Amino acid sequence: MNKLKVLFHINDPERWPRVLLNITNFINDAGPANVAVEVVANGGAVLALTGERADQKLQGEMERLAGQGIVFSACRNALRMHSLDEGKLPPYITVVPAGITEIAQKQAGGFAYIKP
Amino acid sequence: MNKLKVLFHINDPERWPRVLLNITNFINDAGPANVAVEVVANGGAVLALTGERADQKLQGEMERLAGQGIVFSACRNALRMHSLDEGKLPPYITVVPAGITEIAQKQAGGFAYIKP
Amino acid sequence: MNKLKVLFHINDPERWPRVLLNITNFINDAGPANVAVEVVANGGAVLALTGERADQKLQGEMERLAGQGIVFSACRNALRMHSLDEGKLPPYITVVPAGITEIAQKQAGGFAYIKP
Repeated sequence: MNKLKVLFHINDPERWPRVLLNITNFINDAGPANVAVEVVANGGAVLALTGERADQKLQGEMERLAGQGIVFSACRNALRMHSLDEGKLPPYITVVPAGITEIAQKQAGGFAYIKP
Repeated sequence: MNKLKVLFHINDPERWPRVLLNITNFINDAGPANVAVEVVANGGAVLALTGERADQKLQGEMERLAGQGIVFSACRNALRMHSLDEGKLPPYITVVPAGITEIAQKQAGGFAYIKP
Repeated sequence: MNKLKVLFHINDPERWPRVLLNITNFINDAGPANVAVEVVANGGAVLALTGERADQKLQGEMERLAGQGIVFSACRNALRMHSLDEGKLPPYITVVPAGITEIAQKQAGGFAYIKP
């Protein structure tokens, strides 16, 4: 069976709990070996990732999901706009030059798009 | 002509009127015979479907659209999280094990994704 | 290289600044010659395009982006619902009969969907 490929887009920091719950339920339903999941965070969603508004509880969840193969990507434009230092991001977060380009490329490569 | 296939995703109960209006306008424009439409409700959007916050007016609209072939799917995880009894859902609503899996599979099958 | 094709969907007038910033960053990253971008506005998002709530600053941005090849489409159903005269729209905005049909057709034609 081909893996179910899903890209989650988040641009609002309040949506993180919902995104992470959606991913957890998805993995539990489809099986971690049967899915490929990437989360692209741009806009204000990057505020939860580092700096003053970093959320430790959410980051614990992200780290757990990253350990199951979920990819977390943060938009460099958004990090700069919010004056966040990408060198201080947790190690399981990858920086992409532009979140929109990443989302477009992944959809072109067969990923479904979901905006929780 | 191939049917235009569209999946509508709703996870916020306040968005139901907008979703149902979008579908009605879409059917009127493209013609009911030329479209395949599924609505996947997860998160708090399931609150409008049954229980205390069930909305009779919206449900009348849904029933009318279901009669035109529109498929309404509710996420079992979301129903459980909100303590809703899936046995009491209106007959035109189908329960899917996980809304995200359903959305991913439909997109893999050629459905466009729209989040009103 | 094939162009990266992206459809942006907006149905909330407050999201215009975010949509236009996303497009600007995307063009800067991928290069204007390498992208095809269409914005489909339905729902309340059309309020920013003409009439009392038209936003001159946003429209200056839209005109600049239209000059770089970005397509702006407004849903006729939404214009009528908000009693807006489509004859008074700026010249760089195209009216489509139904926004949802346009979004579905573009995705069927290989456009990625993004809802900022």
